[in-house]
Amino acid sequence: MIYADNAATTPMSPAARETMVSLLDTCWGNASSLYLHGQRAREALENARAEVANLIGAQPREIVFTSGGSEADNQAIRSAAALGKRQGKTHIVSSAFEHHAVLHTLKALEKEGFTVTLVDVHHDGLVRPDEVAAAIRDDTCLVTIMYANNEIGTIQPIREIGAICREKGVLFHTDAVQAVGHIPVDVVEDNIDLLSASAHKFHGPKGTGFLYARRGVALTSLIAGGAQEKGKRAGTENVPAIAAMATALREAVGKMEVRRAYLTRLGDKLIDGLGQIPHSALNGDRDHRLPGSVNFCFEGIEGESLLLLLDDRGICASSGSACTSGSLDPSHVLLAIGRVHDVAHGSLRLTLDEDVTEADVDAIIRETADVVAYLRGFSPIWRDLMAGKKQFIL
Amino acid sequence: MIYADNAATTPMSPAARETMVSLLDTCWGNASSLYLHGQRAREALENARAEVANLIGAQPREIVFTSGGSEADNQAIRSAAALGKRQGKTHIVSSAFEHHAVLHTLKALEKEGFTVTLVDVHHDGLVRPDEVAAAIRDDTCLVTIMYANNEIGTIQPIREIGAICREKGVLFHTDAVQAVGHIPVDVVEDNIDLLSASAHKFHGPKGTGFLYARRGVALTSLIAGGAQEKGKRAGTENVPAIAAMATALREAVGKMEVRRAYLTRLGDKLIDGLGQIPHSALNGDRDHRLPGSVNFCFEGIEGESLLLLLDDRGICASSGSACTSGSLDPSHVLLAIGRVHDVAHGSLRLTLDEDVTEADVDAIIRETADVVAYLRGFSPIWRDLMAGKKQFIL
Repeated sequence: MIYADNAATTPMSPAARETMVSLLDTCWGNASSLYLHGQRAREALENARAEVANLIGAQPREIVFTSGGSEADNQAIRSAAALGKRQGKTHIVSSAFEHHAVLHTLKALEKEGFTVTLVDVHHDGLVRPDEVAAAIRDDTCLVTIMYANNEIGTIQPIREIGAICREKGVLFHTDAVQAVGHIPVDVVEDNIDLLSASAHKFHGPKGTGFLYARRGVALTSLIAGGAQEKGKRAGTENVPAIAAMATALREAVGKMEVRRAYLTRLGDKLIDGLGQIPHSALNGDRDHRLPGSVNFCFEGIEGESLLLLLDDRGICASSGSACTSGSLDPSHVLLAIGRVHDVAHGSLRLTLDEDVTEADVDAIIRETADVVAYLRGFSPIWRDLMAGKKQFIL
Repeated sequence: MIYADNAATTPMSPAARETMVSLLDTCWGNASSLYLHGQRAREALENARAEVANLIGAQPREIVFTSGGSEADNQAIRSAAALGKRQGKTHIVSSAFEHHAVLHTLKALEKEGFTVTLVDVHHDGLVRPDEVAAAIRDDTCLVTIMYANNEIGTIQPIREIGAICREKGVLFHTDAVQAVGHIPVDVVEDNIDLLSASAHKFHGPKGTGFLYARRGVALTSLIAGGAQEKGKRAGTENVPAIAAMATALREAVGKMEVRRAYLTRLGDKLIDGLGQIPHSALNGDRDHRLPGSVNFCFEGIEGESLLLLLDDRGICASSGSACTSGSLDPSHVLLAIGRVHDVAHGSLRLTLDEDVTEADVDAIIRETADVVAYLRGFSPIWRDLMAGKKQFIL
């Protein structure tokens, strides 16, 4: 199996797995319990917090552990909205290609009286800082722009957007689920007030993530109850998984540069190879992208059939976000960057990791070209395109 | 170490641990992914759902997996409140000794315009069904009463309360975090509409739980985003942990009767032994209690000192809920059953499990008696009591 869907999820690294399994046995106490067995769990929890904080340039007290990236996104946005509302500020700036954990939370806030401006995502898959600046109003309480897009992998000008928000006194949240552990993220240098991350995207366990909230930014509880996480997130802390997340992040940051160089080379090879397929196009800017993250559109085919046939040939890939698979709508991300419906339907996301070899990339290119040609043989759209009844777009 | 704090958390059972570790290796795909590797995770997820549902008398579609009991409590109550609000019903009935995941959610709802009636918890630690019935009004949208109390272990007359709610057309939620896996729970026979449970209370993993919502009871998302859990709970499903929860619950239900007989015997022995300590009293009804769950008050001492000295002697216990440890206030549960502040401060919760032996119980009784006597030697309250300057209550 060639696993090329690392943006959907990753297997746990051996070291992270070892941390978790070991703590299941030795450190299963309740971190809120007073006895030594509980305090050992508390210590492991606080060590993990210090480590995670340090790896993104934060202070330990600025980290709240959550059940994952979606929860962190919801809590960040809900918190900023609550702070804004108290000051009569009910306008939020975001972009059209955010993850649904952001967009659906914004939709819910609209029903509660908030106004949302979605800035354009250009054809290159990038948000323009000056357009964010122009969208900010006197009543804007929050700007939320993702660090790197989960479908097309484009890395946004976060630092510049953060600087604009800082200057204008508006809170800035970034969904960094695809970025943390993959590219350098420093909340201070990047001018970030709120940041969401998810462990299973960087070889940590599922069901665990964290929310960074700059000191002074008061969080609202999404889950009310016990006094865990300084009253900001109730529920018994999942210490073995949280410690494993810290291990995974330490590893990921430690080897980030080597990994980035390798995956950039592999990604370039993949982009060049897939680009040879007629009537295909890379989605999003070629340079400002996550290492090893490649998204293509192929005219005249359905992404779902492509995936199933690639799976038959041992290649795991996706058409976009796993969170929305099963939906018949084309990707909102591809529509946001200006792909028309027909073209957006024929998308393929390949997100590589270190275990993928050059030979694997050759195989992906070869099998994709083969499957695309095969599917086009059955495609009525392709027939119309070839007959000149429809215009080629790519 | 004698671990007598199983209401705070439990270690994973070997079988549940084996399920989780094995799935970390073989079933780490994203359950929303289309390829076989993802569909295997989907299958494990749905098998777990069917198993969990079956073990509480529910249908698979009625189970939503959450990050734990607190999240399930929040979502259940928020959902019922949202449904009620649409019908102009904004009154909720609960009790004063619920878990904070319930009480704090109700507090938040009060700020949003809801009215809450807390029925009395009597000295025996039991809610009276007729008092619940009397508290229900025309505008009541929800009754939420816990299945078994997490501090004193008393089991509530859930079936009767459920029948009353059903008759009056009011939704009934029960926080069954301490009950599921410990005593028989059947959502149909018990007339339950919404039920919360947590895996780590029955030897499953931390960070995982579930919410049962009777078919036809529409849930509100607490975490918006991807389409996971039929759109009712966003975030990549933590399949290894969810499958481990199902394993743990199957085991717990399978040995429930044997375990209950053993722990009832051990609990009785413990109650009799601790009852020999002068000026002590069992909290809550002796008969209607979780097997092996014992909570005592000792006059003239501070519970926290008692715990620390017991810890020195190898006994892990608590004064009440781990979720509120660190607080200087006495337990809201003990106050709710009518204990005065001074007495409530001197509480000890011991929650046994199968690995505790008769000899362990003897040791707990002996050490507790010894430590209580020792602490009373230093206690100004005890001096006043002995000098007749204060009246003994127990």
